[in-house]
Amino acid sequence: MSDQQQKNASAKLWGGRFSETTAASVEDFTASIHYDARLYRHDIIGSKVHARMLAKQGLISDEECAAILKGLDGIRAEIESGRFEFRRELEDIHMNIEKALTDRIGAPGEKLHTARSRNDQVALDLRLYLREEGEALLELLEAVQRGFAVLARRYLGTVMPGYTHLQRAQPVLLSHHLLAYVEMFGRDRDRFADWLKRMNVLPLGAAAMAGTGLPIDREFVARELGFPAVSANSMDTAADRDFALEFLFCASVTQLHLSRLAEELVLWAGKEFDFIEIGDRYCTGSSIMPQKKNPDIPELIRGKSGRVTGALMSLMMTLKGLPMTYNRDLQEDKEPVFDALDTVKASLAITAELLENVRFRTERLREAATGGFMTATDLADYLVRKNMPFRQAHGVVGRIVAHCQEKGMELTDMELEELRQFSDTIAEDVMDVLTVEGSVNSRVSAGGTAGVRVEEALARIEQQLGIAG
Amino acid sequence: MSDQQQKNASAKLWGGRFSETTAASVEDFTASIHYDARLYRHDIIGSKVHARMLAKQGLISDEECAAILKGLDGIRAEIESGRFEFRRELEDIHMNIEKALTDRIGAPGEKLHTARSRNDQVALDLRLYLREEGEALLELLEAVQRGFAVLARRYLGTVMPGYTHLQRAQPVLLSHHLLAYVEMFGRDRDRFADWLKRMNVLPLGAAAMAGTGLPIDREFVARELGFPAVSANSMDTAADRDFALEFLFCASVTQLHLSRLAEELVLWAGKEFDFIEIGDRYCTGSSIMPQKKNPDIPELIRGKSGRVTGALMSLMMTLKGLPMTYNRDLQEDKEPVFDALDTVKASLAITAELLENVRFRTERLREAATGGFMTATDLADYLVRKNMPFRQAHGVVGRIVAHCQEKGMELTDMELEELRQFSDTIAEDVMDVLTVEGSVNSRVSAGGTAGVRVEEALARIEQQLGIAG
Amino acid sequence: MSDQQQKNASAKLWGGRFSETTAASVEDFTASIHYDARLYRHDIIGSKVHARMLAKQGLISDEECAAILKGLDGIRAEIESGRFEFRRELEDIHMNIEKALTDRIGAPGEKLHTARSRNDQVALDLRLYLREEGEALLELLEAVQRGFAVLARRYLGTVMPGYTHLQRAQPVLLSHHLLAYVEMFGRDRDRFADWLKRMNVLPLGAAAMAGTGLPIDREFVARELGFPAVSANSMDTAADRDFALEFLFCASVTQLHLSRLAEELVLWAGKEFDFIEIGDRYCTGSSIMPQKKNPDIPELIRGKSGRVTGALMSLMMTLKGLPMTYNRDLQEDKEPVFDALDTVKASLAITAELLENVRFRTERLREAATGGFMTATDLADYLVRKNMPFRQAHGVVGRIVAHCQEKGMELTDMELEELRQFSDTIAEDVMDVLTVEGSVNSRVSAGGTAGVRVEEALARIEQQLGIAG
Amino acid sequence: MSDQQQKNASAKLWGGRFSETTAASVEDFTASIHYDARLYRHDIIGSKVHARMLAKQGLISDEECAAILKGLDGIRAEIESGRFEFRRELEDIHMNIEKALTDRIGAPGEKLHTARSRNDQVALDLRLYLREEGEALLELLEAVQRGFAVLARRYLGTVMPGYTHLQRAQPVLLSHHLLAYVEMFGRDRDRFADWLKRMNVLPLGAAAMAGTGLPIDREFVARELGFPAVSANSMDTAADRDFALEFLFCASVTQLHLSRLAEELVLWAGKEFDFIEIGDRYCTGSSIMPQKKNPDIPELIRGKSGRVTGALMSLMMTLKGLPMTYNRDLQEDKEPVFDALDTVKASLAITAELLENVRFRTERLREAATGGFMTATDLADYLVRKNMPFRQAHGVVGRIVAHCQEKGMELTDMELEELRQFSDTIAEDVMDVLTVEGSVNSRVSAGGTAGVRVEEALARIEQQLGIAG
Repeated sequence: MSDQQQKNASAKLWGGRFSETTAASVEDFTASIHYDARLYRHDIIGSKVHARMLAKQGLISDEECAAILKGLDGIRAEIESGRFEFRRELEDIHMNIEKALTDRIGAPGEKLHTARSRNDQVALDLRLYLREEGEALLELLEAVQRGFAVLARRYLGTVMPGYTHLQRAQPVLLSHHLLAYVEMFGRDRDRFADWLKRMNVLPLGAAAMAGTGLPIDREFVARELGFPAVSANSMDTAADRDFALEFLFCASVTQLHLSRLAEELVLWAGKEFDFIEIGDRYCTGSSIMPQKKNPDIPELIRGKSGRVTGALMSLMMTLKGLPMTYNRDLQEDKEPVFDALDTVKASLAITAELLENVRFRTERLREAATGGFMTATDLADYLVRKNMPFRQAHGVVGRIVAHCQEKGMELTDMELEELRQFSDTIAEDVMDVLTVEGSVNSRVSAGGTAGVRVEEALARIEQQLGIAG
Repeated sequence: MSDQQQKNASAKLWGGRFSETTAASVEDFTASIHYDARLYRHDIIGSKVHARMLAKQGLISDEECAAILKGLDGIRAEIESGRFEFRRELEDIHMNIEKALTDRIGAPGEKLHTARSRNDQVALDLRLYLREEGEALLELLEAVQRGFAVLARRYLGTVMPGYTHLQRAQPVLLSHHLLAYVEMFGRDRDRFADWLKRMNVLPLGAAAMAGTGLPIDREFVARELGFPAVSANSMDTAADRDFALEFLFCASVTQLHLSRLAEELVLWAGKEFDFIEIGDRYCTGSSIMPQKKNPDIPELIRGKSGRVTGALMSLMMTLKGLPMTYNRDLQEDKEPVFDALDTVKASLAITAELLENVRFRTERLREAATGGFMTATDLADYLVRKNMPFRQAHGVVGRIVAHCQEKGMELTDMELEELRQFSDTIAEDVMDVLTVEGSVNSRVSAGGTAGVRVEEALARIEQQLGIAG
Repeated sequence: MSDQQQKNASAKLWGGRFSETTAASVEDFTASIHYDARLYRHDIIGSKVHARMLAKQGLISDEECAAILKGLDGIRAEIESGRFEFRRELEDIHMNIEKALTDRIGAPGEKLHTARSRNDQVALDLRLYLREEGEALLELLEAVQRGFAVLARRYLGTVMPGYTHLQRAQPVLLSHHLLAYVEMFGRDRDRFADWLKRMNVLPLGAAAMAGTGLPIDREFVARELGFPAVSANSMDTAADRDFALEFLFCASVTQLHLSRLAEELVLWAGKEFDFIEIGDRYCTGSSIMPQKKNPDIPELIRGKSGRVTGALMSLMMTLKGLPMTYNRDLQEDKEPVFDALDTVKASLAITAELLENVRFRTERLREAATGGFMTATDLADYLVRKNMPFRQAHGVVGRIVAHCQEKGMELTDMELEELRQFSDTIAEDVMDVLTVEGSVNSRVSAGGTAGVRVEEALARIEQQLGIAG
Repeated sequence: MSDQQQKNASAKLWGGRFSETTAASVEDFTASIHYDARLYRHDIIGSKVHARMLAKQGLISDEECAAILKGLDGIRAEIESGRFEFRRELEDIHMNIEKALTDRIGAPGEKLHTARSRNDQVALDLRLYLREEGEALLELLEAVQRGFAVLARRYLGTVMPGYTHLQRAQPVLLSHHLLAYVEMFGRDRDRFADWLKRMNVLPLGAAAMAGTGLPIDREFVARELGFPAVSANSMDTAADRDFALEFLFCASVTQLHLSRLAEELVLWAGKEFDFIEIGDRYCTGSSIMPQKKNPDIPELIRGKSGRVTGALMSLMMTLKGLPMTYNRDLQEDKEPVFDALDTVKASLAITAELLENVRFRTERLREAATGGFMTATDLADYLVRKNMPFRQAHGVVGRIVAHCQEKGMELTDMELEELRQFSDTIAEDVMDVLTVEGSVNSRVSAGGTAGVRVEEALARIEQQLGIAG
């Protein structure tokens, strides 16, 4: 056994019953410090409250408690100044901090782990961390919504083609299209909020998984850490990763929504659609083609939907078939969670910026919204209003469209008499319904694209988002 | 063009502008009637309210409305009696019903589709269907919880080993272990309930995706169908499948939880654990090995977690990068949803039955809970109570365990003097903490395994589940 | 116990040691006959060879063998005529056939299962089935390749924009673009072929999982069934589903490739690109918008990529962490395999048809290939040929493009003198490289888009596909 | 514009046409240098051959080539000594190296990117990298196989229970069980080898995606880099990530296989099975329970199957629906590939070590293989040999087993006369087939568990693996 190994062996805080030191390859394979170091702050916050509870319950003295609190603050400062040396052979953030604490303050440090396990700690840390990050996500989602609301206000009145099957379907207001995304991301906020609520339960105190016989006070810890409740069953607490799964799901849906937006931005930035221009600062060029200006941001966002969903899939597979309670497999929860979190946060933040740097070509949008029989449904509805059954009206208009296509005409090119050959229900007042504006503004049903509806929706949204109208 | 083809072509309710009939292969490829027929009842319910709204708004006459309602009731009866002939060339349940209606009642039938689209309809049908099935799922989850509560009551007092890393860790009460599952499935209920609430929004009225110019009353429809709200943006409404995704996620988590339970049942039914006996009626045999009695039910449940998660992944990939609004890709939402729903329902139902047919071998459980140093933590906590820092206590006990293993002894085999060689803090009162009962009953922390805690938890759960204690 | 139950109980061929009949709910939950019935033919083929082997080895008499063969042929005929009644309480195709055989021929039927297990059988059936279907897939892939080759020949000479980032990048030949798909699907064929080779190993003879003591001849069975090898380890054979996984992977990649093609077809069929027209017979209409003609086929194909990938994920999760050897979880292999197979086959078949019904708008393609600075790389390469370092050349051309954009000009609009203000390396011969044809035909590097290269590639492909050039 | 920004802007090698500098947030979001730096060596190798080709073709002078080669070697040395400063604003490894080269050697550096694009480069680098790593994987797989072969040799003759449904089924040789894994990992090797072969195609020369007009020599480059072929279609080459997908699939299957092994090791290390002891150096302890010794390594390996499969899922979703040719989404290929590669390599390496540190408890295995009616199939086969139809034999033995269970007896406890009450076909010679050894050694069918078969298999495997028998 080399000196270094001996030093490592002695460092293992759980090493009492082991006669041999851990293999270096095992330390490398099992260590999590390279990624769980990011939990340092939450680990320390949790430990401080734990120590105060131990003191309150008489499990440590007030002096010991004070020493622990001071020691932990010192470690936090050391980490934040970049001077703390994380040691892989100490495996994880919990053991790194506990060891540093004992090195600093001696015996009281050895009392900190009283009545808790690492599984306890990591469950707490991860919840504290995600609770904080969850709030950050809610704000980012709101920023993206705000970006859409600003655009919707800016371009109020602009018409564009609405699509189904990526075929032009009916003219709509650009603002209506933009506000559709506000709804999507609104559901995402709602979902994250439900998750935050469900997750906001104190796990600490499950101890190894059976609870503890030492006289701890979980309610105190919960109160101090802002948890409205303590977990009800210690075995479930040790085994549970629902909160991580649900986070990954919420994140996946958000990234999927972003991928849908991204697809549209990529399409719109191309020559064929030519609906938008993205600012130079938000595009990149080609190493070989000097003329290229590429919409890399939305492409990457779209591509990253695989990554976030992959993280969800990853944890689901990891959890499959695990018996009670803690199994080391669960260590694999953090990397997908961190990666998904970083990805969604970065994607939302850059989307909010990007929206500020998109310029819509309103003339081009209007032009695209014109012709192409996009008011055919309006013509059918016109016939319905004149009491023709909808199916017949649909058939009549279908035949008119076929006729126009054969002749290379638009609906508005047709004379009244020509139209009447298909149905004498058609009268002079038909022309009003065939225009783009007529079409858009007629759709006054709740949630429809008529200007009046969109303005109402926008005003409501602006108010919710705290934007001065 | 064959006669049959011509008949089909004329049958297409959207065929006005088409000069050629649909290829038979295309009908086969695009049809959904073989799986969306299961929505027939919800389609009819939705159509009936839609018709009543059209009448209320003067878009059809009261007589037409009455004819439609009667016609739809007749179709429903025909379907439920098995006499209805679903036609693949009519593509989906919506067109099959509309065509049958028109065949029955003539012109009024042609008015039913006024101011709505199929995308509208399918979004409505699927929400109505899932709302109903969601309630059924909540009941099944409750039944499974009840199954656990009954077992927990039956076996109150039975000790067993608690595991971490599938290694015996600390003795626990079997009832504590069983109640951990009540917590898991409780979170599932909570999650499904959130989903139901979020999903409970009327989509009908998005029409093609831009709303409609016909004077519909969405609020009336919402009220009649029991939706507390109408969707806010017609484009989002046409594009949205969040409610299907979220259902699939909730279902996946439930099946994952079942897979964890299933793993335990499989383990426990094996000779090595030998913790349970599953009734003959809930096992199957081998075609080749005459002695085999296999725990097929939990194995299949465990295996099916792949299926449900696969369904979630399936829809996530389908949605990735879809531009606004409706794209035919969305048709691929229903089969994963139906398959996941059927799977989870069947798995929950058979689990509830299975729990009634499991007998625990209490003697064997107790035996397994004894020895194996499972009270080592109790010994460490004993030292902590005597004011030894936990880390030192952990080290002392680790060395005692190592010593015992070398000698082939259990903790309870050691004489006091022997123990005191490792620490003179150990005194006569140590023996109380080394027994299984002493250990279990000491863990009185909130959520812990002590009998008093478990009885409290069980009483609370029984009350919530409406079980007479 | 009801009569029906008693009848069922007696029907269980493995029921000897069971004192109670299987619960009806268990029969429902565990049965696979509703989907594995499709293996009937392969089950019978396998059983016939098994019976002949048993006779050859003296384990049954020649008369018994003859009776079995005749009986099995009769059952096959009965199934194929639709008269066979599949019974759910007999669980699967194997037991349904064995029971029917015994009902038909009595005692010899009871000898058929000598020295084999159902796990044995299903592994064999599935391999036989997939081997056959694998060949069908190879042919479908070839048909799709042929579709592309035919189009590539038809449109030889047509230029179009080549894209990166969905931005027009450089002009290419449409045929070059089409042949890219021939390469993709060629790799798919290659991959399926490797899978077929690896899978082509006889599993039968693993018996329960340990082999058998009865004197069977696996080599004989392998030879008769066309397997070049027998599996080497009976336990691995019972536990292995690699062949199903690998099939699902190959299928997923093919469907992903189809999704990429589908995306292009959807884009191209839209008004903005307007590159193709899909025949009426291969599109469908809208129930509400009379003018719509939607590219449903490619949309559905694209959407179905989720389904096939979901099937792969499903089986992967099912297999995770399964101990040796057979576990009932493995029953969950067949539905994803069947669903993926059906999906990919249908998608390939309809794609081949669709390609015959796509018309490219060559004028529109050419127009789109013109302008937009798509020959900027050619200009940079021109400067490189005149010995300017590429990076400088890239910079010069970048500045020229920026200048043009500011002035609203194309490269070809610039006078020589204007160009020379950016670099006096530019001379009169520059104009040749700025034309679309000049650009395309210059790219003569191996695999490039120059006409000469594309014609070579097409000729090679036609030869490989057996198309007369 | 700040000075730093200006400096960055001037640094962009593609910045000619851009009037504004890239936003810092965009640089952060799009950069890949933090993970693609690991491709530096392959990037340099590829660039060196590219430069030599350019010189051979007269596109650069011999002096320029020499300067480039020397410059690249210098950069490699700098990177390997840790002195190279990677700059995020230069985005990726390609631009970092090209910029450093130009900084070192001036103008010739600006010629290196002649006739190639970054997409070209990254496709090449990744293939070179994976080709090298693929070889490493093959060796690791072989090392694991070797580990099993060594154990199989060491424990030749040891009997254990073979399992189906995790129920004891038939006695087998431990060595037979171990060799099953050799087969599994053998298929993995085969699959990786097919992938390596299919991937071994030179992509370089696709240029932007259309090929190039500069007179490059792809065959030369292929030859020098050891590629047997050049890619056939430049557009396919730019769009293709099949090689990354297939790698991820092969890796996923290997990790799934490892998860199955891991599950067994975890089970076997538990008190209930108690089949193995894992060396202290390959286990870790608990922070709270002093007695614990946990099988963390197999648990983590099992858990990591989610991670590798998640990576596969991730790239599949990313690729879904991407149009031709290069889209920035493809940048998301590398992180899942690197993560999966690192995971599988580490898992295989530690598995090989672990196998050396596992000790089987042979007495316990034998004991577990005894009794439990595990020779029931032997008894049925005995009756078959005496010409009883197998189904009847199965039934007779089933009844005997039921009888024994009722009486609490084992098969071997029964007197001949007792047995004969179930069938008078049973004679004195029956006792030979009811022993564990008799059972095991009777299974001489090809691939069976009889000692003679296992020794043959082991000898063959040892020879293949180059182990002296």
